[in-house]
Amino acid sequence: MKTKKAVVLLSGGIDSAVTLYLAKKEYDCRVLIFDYGQRARKEVECAKALADAAECPYEVLKTAFPWKGSALLDLSSPVPASGEGEGIPATYVPARNIIFLSYGVSFAEAAGAEAVFIGAHQHDFSNYPDCRDEFFERYRRMIEAGTRSGAEGSAVRIETPVLDMTKSEIIAAGYGMGVPFEFTWSCYEGGEHPCGRCESCAFRAKGFKEAGLEDPAAETTGGKAG
Amino acid sequence: MKTKKAVVLLSGGIDSAVTLYLAKKEYDCRVLIFDYGQRARKEVECAKALADAAECPYEVLKTAFPWKGSALLDLSSPVPASGEGEGIPATYVPARNIIFLSYGVSFAEAAGAEAVFIGAHQHDFSNYPDCRDEFFERYRRMIEAGTRSGAEGSAVRIETPVLDMTKSEIIAAGYGMGVPFEFTWSCYEGGEHPCGRCESCAFRAKGFKEAGLEDPAAETTGGKAG
Repeated sequence: MKTKKAVVLLSGGIDSAVTLYLAKKEYDCRVLIFDYGQRARKEVECAKALADAAECPYEVLKTAFPWKGSALLDLSSPVPASGEGEGIPATYVPARNIIFLSYGVSFAEAAGAEAVFIGAHQHDFSNYPDCRDEFFERYRRMIEAGTRSGAEGSAVRIETPVLDMTKSEIIAAGYGMGVPFEFTWSCYEGGEHPCGRCESCAFRAKGFKEAGLEDPAAETTGGKAG
Repeated sequence: MKTKKAVVLLSGGIDSAVTLYLAKKEYDCRVLIFDYGQRARKEVECAKALADAAECPYEVLKTAFPWKGSALLDLSSPVPASGEGEGIPATYVPARNIIFLSYGVSFAEAAGAEAVFIGAHQHDFSNYPDCRDEFFERYRRMIEAGTRSGAEGSAVRIETPVLDMTKSEIIAAGYGMGVPFEFTWSCYEGGEHPCGRCESCAFRAKGFKEAGLEDPAAETTGGKAG
């Protein structure tokens, strides 16, 4: 039994699944899953299956972004195809990572955990402002000033172990740790099978290809891009 | 019709009510109310009544802190009486203001609003780490790095107009603007009437006394401390 405790944010995607397995090496992990009205309803089911596979207790937090403001939330707004558009993607959800991280910090303080793990990575999706190193650095300084743990000199740490890895490096690392990729979901759409055309499907396919590995979810679901 | 838009966080207490009326002078305001399982169920009803009185549309966001970690959330944990304990109060809710502010920023970005108003003040409750100037300064820098509006050079502004006012100054300012204090709720407990013994009831009573004003809620509810 590990004595150090951590909270791991789990979206059901590859990055957070690998992050969970990295965190598990050193920490007794509590998993935090968000059901926030996302278009991809399979994410939540995949996240639960991943937490179960990793034998970590989980909490599903139901919340909402009633003001929408993202193609991931507004069903009348199309998910852009891979390569479509520039700048910050239409799939950016205003302040989502800030909110999710902060729930993680809240959970960590209440549970006596010393760290929150988040599976952000800044290379493939470098246009998301809330996935960049500079954001995390400033977030940490904010936590040091604005929380009980910070005021007491032991601020909850924000751990981003895959931040500087490419998708294929993340996949290879997860493969080595036995991450059950068949329980991960990447597609932004809400279908039963991955759409194969959104940015996230494209990055997943590219990542597995570059890692020289088969995507087990592609086989399970029959989707082309997995 | 004002052209500048703002989001105002409204708890149903005096500070946020006065903040709403201050914001209304310059902005077309959208109100954001949180129903987060707080012990004081009257807060949400008061906040709605305040928004209606101010003729501002509101959104009630239902969320939760299932890990508790605060006397305001855990009904088995007593609310301390005024003057009881030192350091950070048992009524501190881990990361609550950070989460609420961030929902405000999300709402503001989605609605094209330029500012979020929060009624924090650092004097009476100086032991809450998330009500101090240093916290807000760092929060602003984090927003500049981690949001779409920040990346585009026009980060949502965090406005704290009552931060450096005392409770009696806040009450006097609100009185001058016609804030309907009969619709505000301060007590931490979940009763029909204010308990009169918690820190928040004590500060309210002291604030009205120092401002030389009657608390209209004390008359309406029949509570001793209002």
